Amino acid sequence: TTSSSSSSSSSNLLFRQLFEKESSTYTYLLADLTHPDKPALLVDPVDKTVDRDISIVEELGLKLIYAINTHVHADHVTGTGLLKSKVEGVKSMISKASNSKADLFVEHGDKIQIGNLFLEVRATPGHTAGCVTYVTGDGLDQPQPRMAFTGDALLIRGCGRTDFQGGSSSQLYKSVHSQIFSLPKDTLVYPAHDYKGFTVSTVGEEMLYNPRLTKDEETFKNIMENLQLSYPKMIDVAVPANMVCGLQDVTKDPTKPL
Amino acid sequence: TTSSSSSSSSSNLLFRQLFEKESSTYTYLLADLTHPDKPALLVDPVDKTVDRDISIVEELGLKLIYAINTHVHADHVTGTGLLKSKVEGVKSMISKASNSKADLFVEHGDKIQIGNLFLEVRATPGHTAGCVTYVTGDGLDQPQPRMAFTGDALLIRGCGRTDFQGGSSSQLYKSVHSQIFSLPKDTLVYPAHDYKGFTVSTVGEEMLYNPRLTKDEETFKNIMENLQLSYPKMIDVAVPANMVCGLQDVTKDPTKPL
Ligand SMILES: [Fe+2]
Ligand SMILES: [Fe+2]
Repeated sequence: TTSSSSSSSSSNLLFRQLFEKESSTYTYLLADLTHPDKPALLVDPVDKTVDRDISIVEELGLKLIYAINTHVHADHVTGTGLLKSKVEGVKSMISKASNSKADLFVEHGDKIQIGNLFLEVRATPGHTAGCVTYVTGDGLDQPQPRMAFTGDALLIRGCGRTDFQGGSSSQLYKSVHSQIFSLPKDTLVYPAHDYKGFTVSTVGEEMLYNPRLTKDEETFKNIMENLQLSYPKMIDVAVPANMVCGLQDVTKDPTKPL
Repeated sequence: TTSSSSSSSSSNLLFRQLFEKESSTYTYLLADLTHPDKPALLVDPVDKTVDRDISIVEELGLKLIYAINTHVHADHVTGTGLLKSKVEGVKSMISKASNSKADLFVEHGDKIQIGNLFLEVRATPGHTAGCVTYVTGDGLDQPQPRMAFTGDALLIRGCGRTDFQGGSSSQLYKSVHSQIFSLPKDTLVYPAHDYKGFTVSTVGEEMLYNPRLTKDEETFKNIMENLQLSYPKMIDVAVPANMVCGLQDVTKDPTKPL
């Protein structure tokens, strides 16, 4: 058994987990309340819930500066483009390895600063070639325990599929073991999705109970090769849209004049 | 604007929020990790997700002692009866004012002890006649900020309907203002439901932004009388079942011999 608390605390962190039911996607809001601007960022916003996200940002008196994605989602359209169009000054961000459009690109080892808080970028490819995990900073001035926004690399008692978008089961196995399971065991795991109603897990819990990633690499690869998943409904719409922050470039729309 | 953290922390509290998608119900797991038994309770478990709840209790090495309800739900069947049948030693609990069957009954002012943690019972009638809010203890050895499990009395930017099950808009208004809005502003509000994907709010936030309960009592009563809600689908099944912990008494089942 694993003993661990299940919320992170820091006098400066405001943290909210938000859920989009149709795609079972979690969006995360983080802000530094001690900074005079109360700078904030959203991880994995969904287009359909952008107005909800903007209203909570406004009510809490935050200044949204970044809208970031863990990867190019295949199951929903990102809200980063809409957020940029609706809130002044927001910059979209994604990994350079995703090959997508965005205002800013991150790479393994980068730090994303929000006031005095920061997120560390860890490359965790395997579900897609450009997947990253964002981890709150190390250090006593940062939230304790640490929080890892794992996207679809590591889900609660599961993981993302590896059969398209440059996926690779062998790469995913290495990513999770070297970049996530190497974090302190009490690190909170906040995934991009959950389909059973779990909201959070910990690194220690997943190291003990993840039915896939506790196996050896060969068994893991076998499991992933035999999932027999159907082709995702949204992929042909979501992926191209998400490559451009969720908004199709209107100048390229043949039905509209330039 | 309101500035507040959004998670509670205490070295002894294990806390998990769990979601049931069909009825958009939140179940909460609380446990005292410092006590040798790791005693735990579930607030508002749902029958359909009992196996998920039992598996997380087991994996975390907890001893489930109580399965408690904030009120007699009309939209889903409680999991308390199933939990009792599947996990030895679990006691069901609900307010005496609910007029339901359970192992233990609570009244306003009671304390529910789980190891060294406790919940305070506050009567918050109005959605139903027997609604209570469970609030984590006052005191530095208890989670900070406090956490209020408000059931359907206070929802995030909303509240439960007041048109059946002994509901009363005037009573609900008084309950929320005297029993919930009187808590410290940083108290975390964990409702029984959310339909927009919010997971938590605070007393301070609801005092500022709840579209119903920030109004004066007359306006509130008018809002509640003009909601024109349809009759809840599940009520005729859920209410009788929930009056007996979600399990019909098998000895009264005419199709089965005694
Ligand atoms: Fe994905
Ligand atoms: Fe209810």
